[in-house]
Amino acid sequence: MKKVLIIGAGRSTIYLIDYLLSWASKHKGLVHVVDMNEDLAKSAIKNHPNAKASAANALDPATREELFKDIDLLISMLPAHLHAQVVAHAVEKGINVITPSYLSKEVAALEDQAQNNGVLVLNELGVDPGIDHMSAMKFLDGKRDQGANFTGFESFTGGLVAPESDDNEWNYKFTWNPRNVVLAGQGGAVKFIQEGSYKYIPYHKLFRRTEVIDIPNYGKFEGYANRDSLKYRNTYGLQDIKTIYRGTLRRKGFCRAWDVFVQLGATDDSYIMEGSEHMTYRDFINAFLAYNPDDSVELKFKHYINLRQDDDELWQKFVSLGIFSRKKVGLKDATPAQILQRILEDSWTLKPEDKDMIVMWHKFNYEIKGKKYEAQSSMVALGENQKHTAMAKTVGLPLAIAAKLMLEDKIKLKGVHLPIKSEIYNPILKELEKHGIKFTEQEKVVQVVL
Amino acid sequence: MKKVLIIGAGRSTIYLIDYLLSWASKHKGLVHVVDMNEDLAKSAIKNHPNAKASAANALDPATREELFKDIDLLISMLPAHLHAQVVAHAVEKGINVITPSYLSKEVAALEDQAQNNGVLVLNELGVDPGIDHMSAMKFLDGKRDQGANFTGFESFTGGLVAPESDDNEWNYKFTWNPRNVVLAGQGGAVKFIQEGSYKYIPYHKLFRRTEVIDIPNYGKFEGYANRDSLKYRNTYGLQDIKTIYRGTLRRKGFCRAWDVFVQLGATDDSYIMEGSEHMTYRDFINAFLAYNPDDSVELKFKHYINLRQDDDELWQKFVSLGIFSRKKVGLKDATPAQILQRILEDSWTLKPEDKDMIVMWHKFNYEIKGKKYEAQSSMVALGENQKHTAMAKTVGLPLAIAAKLMLEDKIKLKGVHLPIKSEIYNPILKELEKHGIKFTEQEKVVQVVL
Repeated sequence: MKKVLIIGAGRSTIYLIDYLLSWASKHKGLVHVVDMNEDLAKSAIKNHPNAKASAANALDPATREELFKDIDLLISMLPAHLHAQVVAHAVEKGINVITPSYLSKEVAALEDQAQNNGVLVLNELGVDPGIDHMSAMKFLDGKRDQGANFTGFESFTGGLVAPESDDNEWNYKFTWNPRNVVLAGQGGAVKFIQEGSYKYIPYHKLFRRTEVIDIPNYGKFEGYANRDSLKYRNTYGLQDIKTIYRGTLRRKGFCRAWDVFVQLGATDDSYIMEGSEHMTYRDFINAFLAYNPDDSVELKFKHYINLRQDDDELWQKFVSLGIFSRKKVGLKDATPAQILQRILEDSWTLKPEDKDMIVMWHKFNYEIKGKKYEAQSSMVALGENQKHTAMAKTVGLPLAIAAKLMLEDKIKLKGVHLPIKSEIYNPILKELEKHGIKFTEQEKVVQVVL
Repeated sequence: MKKVLIIGAGRSTIYLIDYLLSWASKHKGLVHVVDMNEDLAKSAIKNHPNAKASAANALDPATREELFKDIDLLISMLPAHLHAQVVAHAVEKGINVITPSYLSKEVAALEDQAQNNGVLVLNELGVDPGIDHMSAMKFLDGKRDQGANFTGFESFTGGLVAPESDDNEWNYKFTWNPRNVVLAGQGGAVKFIQEGSYKYIPYHKLFRRTEVIDIPNYGKFEGYANRDSLKYRNTYGLQDIKTIYRGTLRRKGFCRAWDVFVQLGATDDSYIMEGSEHMTYRDFINAFLAYNPDDSVELKFKHYINLRQDDDELWQKFVSLGIFSRKKVGLKDATPAQILQRILEDSWTLKPEDKDMIVMWHKFNYEIKGKKYEAQSSMVALGENQKHTAMAKTVGLPLAIAAKLMLEDKIKLKGVHLPIKSEIYNPILKELEKHGIKFTEQEKVVQVVL
């Protein structure tokens, strides 16, 4: 009887746990779900006969020692910065591990020990990072087998609202941690490489340097750059590539409007605004505008953002958020970013029947035998409701499928890995297709080199 | 025989040391100058019979124990962040201290011990901070004695180049640490209060929110806001003031051009640019501009900054710096800010006979017996050459005069202080006038309240 331990039963685990419960039924396995919140763990397993739920703090070594008894596989859904000690402990005990999080230095350093103990630690196995790696590597490896030399790679992913639930002026709702959305792009200049030149974009220009992307059947999106695209050169074996650019997708028009908050300084998380508790939404906006006793906040705002008289589309985005209202912020000692988040949550929270949408898009440029090609590959996943989200599905299913493969001993690899080897990505991508997570490719010859 | 120890013989100490040498001649005192660099210490005292120069590391407690023997007064010219332990040691030994630096939490915490040991620790006694405090407090206290209620206070200071040496397109040269000039305004949003409303300016807008200031006989300047104006409410006893704003002066046109570097991201000090060693000035600028195979760096730059066809004044500022040249940066693993500093040093370094200039300006708004007043007070100090700078004079003389007063037991105050009490600022300001450091005031009635 195979036993899998899942630490964390938050909202991105619903598909993961359901998949493993049905696997456990079939294979007489056991799924043990642990969370600090017992109700969360219990409701996740729905009294399933092959499952167990308990409340425990996995950050406590003694508790973990108990939890790790007799376990074949650990899936850690802890926040990224808490993985290291838990993973180290599992490796020490000879337990395989899967996480959806970015590979940290601490986890990477476990490579030798994992090899020695015959353990596989698989990281970055959600949607982004995760499905992006697998779909890109499948394309890259396939074309390399045909002798391709890659000159350009762009990759964009976005967590958005599905067209049928898209009912606000921004064509956006929070489908993930709202705080991360407000702080997106902060913490250092964006770095990428284009036609062999290093390029840098400071935060305050990031949302103006966007690229328009057309996704078949879904219309126009825009992408802004992620912080560090350069590290993917090594991950993907593209050390000499001339252009590499990764980014985040929004609906067209979002970034130009979001840039207004950046320009105001309203996304700043580095200081507390005095008296934020008694501030209104209007006061908040006014704090970033120059003093003028005769002009309204609306007029000063229009002037600050240089709003064209006829640009009603942009203007309505702000009016619809209620930023000029006298509603109280009601947050004590809050930073601008925290107050902005509070304001946005009024308008951007998913309603119970709202459906979210994950969009992923890659563009590859390469040369094979004197011909230059460009290929685009895209995937759209739609959620079912506020609980069964596309986000939970695209994060949870790759983890679940990998878990199944590992529990059934179908992956021979040992050590610390990302899902960039065909042994891992092929079976996972194949099964994801059955769940509707499928990439559509278009390839064209752009030049015949003489 | 009174003995004064000066730690640090850098370029801002020339007037300080000369003044104290001549005081020592007259009063049979001794001036001991200590620096890590023996030549610097020796050349500072010029074989004066009442002086001693030595090389020593004042950060070493045992060395300090020796240095502190028999000393009546310590003047610490160490970098601001190194003061704390040296000052604490002096207080423990019962030695009075003067520093030009901002009062740190660590030094402020010595208050009780200083009181108990009968010691005076006088901080912020250079030009800014220093002369700004003294001149403002003299005005505030004088008007308060007449029953004034203050409603507004603005204060700006700038270290600039004197009109006769002002020969570049930016009307600016480095008269102080160039690195601080490049990084000015970074590290958090600017905070101030205007007509009772808190106002915040993000870094990327700072150099566009300037104020034009006219200084009698010296023409137009512009001021950008310093980081935190709010703390001065307590220092100056202006807790209920409606407007308080402190800033830095530049010649008109400087800030709009400097803002271009901010917008590019060229002042960023948070990351290293790959291959900076082999980069040209032109490559550096191009790294912040979007890729385009057909356009020149010049054209992309003009487009990025939205340069008007006829705005030759702005354009010439950049051309004159050589930023489009193919000169090598020659700095390994450098940040954008370090590279920009290198480029600017080509054009903004004082020549041996160049004269610098310190400009200080205050504006006060207040009400006395039903009349509303506005007063402006300004001071301009000119340097003599690259060595005898206005900066060294305005930093060194207040320190020197305070030292004399303390050596002659003319200040009775004990504890940790800023120069905001009349017992300190009156004699210092009076003597500064003899050295040509003098404020000119203009007062007018702006409204008679009925």
